[in-house]
Amino acid sequence: MYVAILGYGTVGSGVFDVLTQNRDIIAKRVGFPLDVKYVLDLRDFPGDPVEPYLTHDYEDILKDDSVEIVVETMGGLKPAYEFTKRALESGRSVCTSNKELVAKHGAEFIEIARNKNINYLFEASVGGGIPVIRQLIRSITADEVEEVCGILNGTTNYMMTLMREQNLSFEDALKDAQSNGFAERNPAADIEGHDACRKIAILTSLAYGHQVDFEDIYTEGITAITDIDVAYAKAMKHGIKLLGRSYLKDGIVYAIVAPYMVRKTNPLYPVNGVYNAIMIRGNMLNDVVCYGKGAGKLPTASAVASDVIDAAKHRHVNIPILWEKEKLILGSKGDMESKFFVRVPLSEADKAKELFPIRKEISILECEGREFAFVTEVMTERDFEEAAAKIDIIGRIRYEI
Amino acid sequence: MYVAILGYGTVGSGVFDVLTQNRDIIAKRVGFPLDVKYVLDLRDFPGDPVEPYLTHDYEDILKDDSVEIVVETMGGLKPAYEFTKRALESGRSVCTSNKELVAKHGAEFIEIARNKNINYLFEASVGGGIPVIRQLIRSITADEVEEVCGILNGTTNYMMTLMREQNLSFEDALKDAQSNGFAERNPAADIEGHDACRKIAILTSLAYGHQVDFEDIYTEGITAITDIDVAYAKAMKHGIKLLGRSYLKDGIVYAIVAPYMVRKTNPLYPVNGVYNAIMIRGNMLNDVVCYGKGAGKLPTASAVASDVIDAAKHRHVNIPILWEKEKLILGSKGDMESKFFVRVPLSEADKAKELFPIRKEISILECEGREFAFVTEVMTERDFEEAAAKIDIIGRIRYEI
Repeated sequence: MYVAILGYGTVGSGVFDVLTQNRDIIAKRVGFPLDVKYVLDLRDFPGDPVEPYLTHDYEDILKDDSVEIVVETMGGLKPAYEFTKRALESGRSVCTSNKELVAKHGAEFIEIARNKNINYLFEASVGGGIPVIRQLIRSITADEVEEVCGILNGTTNYMMTLMREQNLSFEDALKDAQSNGFAERNPAADIEGHDACRKIAILTSLAYGHQVDFEDIYTEGITAITDIDVAYAKAMKHGIKLLGRSYLKDGIVYAIVAPYMVRKTNPLYPVNGVYNAIMIRGNMLNDVVCYGKGAGKLPTASAVASDVIDAAKHRHVNIPILWEKEKLILGSKGDMESKFFVRVPLSEADKAKELFPIRKEISILECEGREFAFVTEVMTERDFEEAAAKIDIIGRIRYEI
Repeated sequence: MYVAILGYGTVGSGVFDVLTQNRDIIAKRVGFPLDVKYVLDLRDFPGDPVEPYLTHDYEDILKDDSVEIVVETMGGLKPAYEFTKRALESGRSVCTSNKELVAKHGAEFIEIARNKNINYLFEASVGGGIPVIRQLIRSITADEVEEVCGILNGTTNYMMTLMREQNLSFEDALKDAQSNGFAERNPAADIEGHDACRKIAILTSLAYGHQVDFEDIYTEGITAITDIDVAYAKAMKHGIKLLGRSYLKDGIVYAIVAPYMVRKTNPLYPVNGVYNAIMIRGNMLNDVVCYGKGAGKLPTASAVASDVIDAAKHRHVNIPILWEKEKLILGSKGDMESKFFVRVPLSEADKAKELFPIRKEISILECEGREFAFVTEVMTERDFEEAAAKIDIIGRIRYEI
């Protein structure tokens, strides 16, 4: 069976490597060999092992009936959307790592695949090498999903780890991440939470079977987190993690991306560096947590390749994925509840005590005599904002319930 | 589609509950409802919701063609072996939580299921609610598995946690586990490692595609671990965990069950209480770790029910599982390598320094002036035993490399 890879970037070249290097073991598991026949890229790669497979023209692939599986590792919406649609409509399965495209058009592609008795698979779009998509659609199938909560972005988790372990400022942590290749020169997608937002949109769509538009998810990045916040977290023996969460409460699904104070006993607490972790809570199962390297060429490529193997094993059989186009209306942000960690100038302490239901006060040496910091009782976002509007707040971070 | 449950014990009644309580959501995911038609048990359960479904005669089930899926939650080999075989041979899929039966006869049942175009599924046999079997056979398929390592027994992990956190002796930890229902009155299967051994045998068979006989796996329980060992572990900021491990080295598969000293940075370190965790390392993927409640009625039942759903979705389609009857010859224990944590009487200190390659020495207040304790360099089991035979050893625990 033949495979074509669209895009020979980091992930695409990784898929090429995995399919080539593990060819024998994959053939054993599938029952027959899987070979790359084309790699589509605008560039040439003289001297690279990919050279004999390169084409610059997508039509070469579409007109070759022996290609049954297309790997889309181009990223972005254009031309990935059109290329994916044409592949599916021509009866070829498509496997992708493109979270942007999956979040936006997943439901549409899943429907085409269903009608054509082929597959649109996207394990690598969330959590890199961690098989979380299969967990949701193929393992945790007997449960009502009560919550999905994860560290979904390795870059920001790496930065938060540096801030904590090496006492770096936000700016220095970002510089370190950039110089180590973990953050793009334009880091907005990571540090402002957009990447995590697309991922939790995909997971929420799968958990509840309907399209969740990422634009509907309240998203807050880590740009407001300072080294002082980290010092407070340390003093409380907590960690600060950028979480993507969605949960079911009284029949309504809520979703959010934001930094949270996380207790030492939380299974996500020890997840540091570029690792990702995802917790899924089922109504029967309790919590299952999975973690691993969320990014990196080979782990992500391994996830794409496992989808290629699934597509090969399900040659003319659609693997059912419940993700309807009909949109899921999320609960409003104002109704969401959490505790909050809040810092105000010391002069505002009395006012804060009047405005907020205070659960405990925290002080650290660095801010003694200057700040009043506390954790509230559980309150709604609406109530919090109402109180916060009346006082000068230095910073605030949600705090796990 | 109709289901019969064999055995209305803890897990069997849990499966009944899951299929009943989550009936609607399951029907949505499968495409049609799944209903329990029979529950086989020797006992009567007057007043229990199961009453109308009860039968004492397996023949009732076998002669009813509308039953397409059989859930085997009886445990043990007899009559589970015969009942399973008859169900499969009559063209019914079987889903089980019976690790003993799977470890012993998995390969045989998988072959029958393959020939009959049905399925023998056993997600719940390892790690309770953690979907580790699917990870191995359906997710991590593009990788060569380099290592599987897990905390596979919740009872012993609970005991080790108590010993560490509440400074209990082994005996008191066992009593606590028994009185909380986590340990059987006869705890041998747990504390001597037999339970973990069957589970790592199953995982190793799946990881490498051939029958691994659990009798071939060197197995050491936690019965030799004392509160003093735990005190040493604490002093080193390590944890002691009963691990089931198998790994590939130079083309040979090794497997072992034994307590290990585990570093704080090890992803299995924070896994406490009745939780299970399994790390799988692929040659492309790196480590993926999954953890959750490894036992308990509903988590285990949820895993069985997810297999029932898979069986229903794959009505006359065999899900390929690579586990051949041909036996895998494991590498010999003598060739396995690790560091060792060793305690000898102080009077033997000089001799110990001659016999062992010592990496570091450790002392704790409790044993000062009485013991000499150290961690060796990496050495083979053979070399270790040879040296250990020449000296009076108080205790020794393997130490992760």
